[in-house]
Amino acid sequence: MTTESTEPGSAPAEPGSVVVTERRGPIAVLRLNRPDRLNAFTIPMMEQLIAAFDETDADDSVRAVVLTGTGRAFCAGADLEAGASTFASPTDEVPPDGGGQVALRIHRSLKPVVSAVNGAAVGVGVTMTLPTDIRIASDDARFGFVFTKRGIVPEACSSWFLPRLVGLPTSLRWAMGGQTVGADEALERGLVQQVVAKDQVLDTAVDVATELITDTAPVSVALTRQLLWRMAGAPGPFDAHLADSRGIHHRGQSADVAEGVTSFLEKRPPRFTDRVSTDLPDIF
Amino acid sequence: MTTESTEPGSAPAEPGSVVVTERRGPIAVLRLNRPDRLNAFTIPMMEQLIAAFDETDADDSVRAVVLTGTGRAFCAGADLEAGASTFASPTDEVPPDGGGQVALRIHRSLKPVVSAVNGAAVGVGVTMTLPTDIRIASDDARFGFVFTKRGIVPEACSSWFLPRLVGLPTSLRWAMGGQTVGADEALERGLVQQVVAKDQVLDTAVDVATELITDTAPVSVALTRQLLWRMAGAPGPFDAHLADSRGIHHRGQSADVAEGVTSFLEKRPPRFTDRVSTDLPDIF
Amino acid sequence: MTTESTEPGSAPAEPGSVVVTERRGPIAVLRLNRPDRLNAFTIPMMEQLIAAFDETDADDSVRAVVLTGTGRAFCAGADLEAGASTFASPTDEVPPDGGGQVALRIHRSLKPVVSAVNGAAVGVGVTMTLPTDIRIASDDARFGFVFTKRGIVPEACSSWFLPRLVGLPTSLRWAMGGQTVGADEALERGLVQQVVAKDQVLDTAVDVATELITDTAPVSVALTRQLLWRMAGAPGPFDAHLADSRGIHHRGQSADVAEGVTSFLEKRPPRFTDRVSTDLPDIF
Repeated sequence: MTTESTEPGSAPAEPGSVVVTERRGPIAVLRLNRPDRLNAFTIPMMEQLIAAFDETDADDSVRAVVLTGTGRAFCAGADLEAGASTFASPTDEVPPDGGGQVALRIHRSLKPVVSAVNGAAVGVGVTMTLPTDIRIASDDARFGFVFTKRGIVPEACSSWFLPRLVGLPTSLRWAMGGQTVGADEALERGLVQQVVAKDQVLDTAVDVATELITDTAPVSVALTRQLLWRMAGAPGPFDAHLADSRGIHHRGQSADVAEGVTSFLEKRPPRFTDRVSTDLPDIF
Repeated sequence: MTTESTEPGSAPAEPGSVVVTERRGPIAVLRLNRPDRLNAFTIPMMEQLIAAFDETDADDSVRAVVLTGTGRAFCAGADLEAGASTFASPTDEVPPDGGGQVALRIHRSLKPVVSAVNGAAVGVGVTMTLPTDIRIASDDARFGFVFTKRGIVPEACSSWFLPRLVGLPTSLRWAMGGQTVGADEALERGLVQQVVAKDQVLDTAVDVATELITDTAPVSVALTRQLLWRMAGAPGPFDAHLADSRGIHHRGQSADVAEGVTSFLEKRPPRFTDRVSTDLPDIF
Repeated sequence: MTTESTEPGSAPAEPGSVVVTERRGPIAVLRLNRPDRLNAFTIPMMEQLIAAFDETDADDSVRAVVLTGTGRAFCAGADLEAGASTFASPTDEVPPDGGGQVALRIHRSLKPVVSAVNGAAVGVGVTMTLPTDIRIASDDARFGFVFTKRGIVPEACSSWFLPRLVGLPTSLRWAMGGQTVGADEALERGLVQQVVAKDQVLDTAVDVATELITDTAPVSVALTRQLLWRMAGAPGPFDAHLADSRGIHHRGQSADVAEGVTSFLEKRPPRFTDRVSTDLPDIF
């Protein structure tokens, strides 16, 4: 259904790649890429997702990330090939939850992340999208919070993310009930921000990502993303005051602010030059 | 208007009972039971509510709880029989707020809790429903946040719960203004999740509770409820990651997960056997 | 367009005043007052805003505050007269963000605060309204989250406030994208609570403020405002339980509660006598 891009910046997938990166100009499209298994989640997929976000953060030519799946599903959840022992760990030690490691990595991305949910998103398939900034869904997408029906618990830090997106009553109903909801209910409740035809999901997500990077300063965007996600859980506004005082102070003497104010006064688009890889202050 | 159930599991109310428990199969229906006083809240009612939730938590045959009132009101608020001295305490020591003790007990319930608000819910009558998971209201219900009009303050931890349900602007308007709102406004603002005819409130609440327990593992449901309510106030996703790593680890080697995955692969309903009373891990 | 009120309680603006206070009976209307500069934000404006809230808090004859702008705009953002060096600080030390100082002052106001956004609200012009309780907007208002387009970051603690009003996806989209939104989108997303014709904004805000103070006890309103804003970021309901136990204890033996309960039982409006300046307990 989808083919690898051959645009400059896109590399052919390495053998064994279950996450492939394509480029749409300044936007990196990360694809879950096990279409024969409906992109079911595995440890290699976890590792490759984390590595992909390390790369998009490090590469100044990437301004935003779109996360999608190859084929008809987004991600069918944990691969159940191991059957009843799928979730068993070999030792008594508690291993860090795999979905959570991906979620935490997306949470601290320095670039905006938009999900293009191109079909079924079940279990970790839906919870891994929660730390992305905006979710665009195909009209045939469905979102399966099936954990309690499998005898486990919601993971990937979803108990922190989900109520912040859809509120407590809806979160409790979906997650305790192990429910699966369609695109319309997901839209109505705030889980996704837009529903479009299946063949429009990726383009729409790229358009939304493009809005976020047009005429905006990359360092400012990275700091803004961190401010909003971190302060969503802060006990009060004073934490934000400390961080944004530092942010205004550092950015207030940057080349970018000079360009931002001057271009505004001259009524022309700005040309920002500061780089996330070298000019990002620590404001927290 | 309502009579005690005579189903197995329902006991006749003891003399002096102001909270009675009826059974609808796996669902315990707790009734505020002072209909001649519109179920006005008293210290015995507080004590009996707390005891009732202790019992529903301890009894593995109870899968969910519905909270409702006997007669035409849900709860008219604190009983004002003592007049001007209603809220006065005999000593200089600060006694724990009674509504808050009930709210905190409901907050840590191990079973899902659905409110069936069968009529007026005023003062503690509305604030005690906020830590329940879902509120179903009768179309003649009204919700009275009357505290500032009586010279006191919102209680029962409602300053923590209410903004998480209806947002800050609505919370501030209702609570500072001492306002009373009808069922339609309560639905529109997210205070209640469904409005139905008066004679359908209890059945609808039982149906919603039934959804939550159908084909779901009791231990998973208990953990999910705790995860969502606790993480709603957590500073960031890492707290959730620690808890759900432990949750996945413990549940991942349980009898329930084996049954959950196997039944899914065999396309049949699961038969979970782990019990909340004996198999609940401490993941926090 | 607007003239100073000559009602009792309103004083003529002092020379150099960029914030003027008018009275509408028990309501203080604070006006950003640099109409020739579209009320652009300056350090004197910051200082005078903070002083104005100090006065409204200290004056028991003020029951609520309305914040608005003189002329066709609400506030066009930071005054850019200094051009590229607008946000530069003369020293290496991090100065506290000016918008944040205003936001924190409004956040701890003891009186309800309603914004009457009478036109464009850009940059600090919109972020300073976030700690007000309710926002009423003119139908030609627009809200500019332009920070990333100027090379700086969102300030005035807006990373804490904004997601609590409009949720994370909308906050991230507006703030990372440096977007400007109209009154209709602001209403739909929950940034403002009502949109009216331009010549009705101030009257509507005064009406909303009037609702909040009618038949409510001033000390109860001050405590309720603090409870809701503080608990919005608290880790769990127990913090609220401690504070409202103290609140119920102190207010439960006040003159106000006696009047509140008695007037209710006598079916007449209450006449509360406790004063914010002298009778406010410390419950936190």
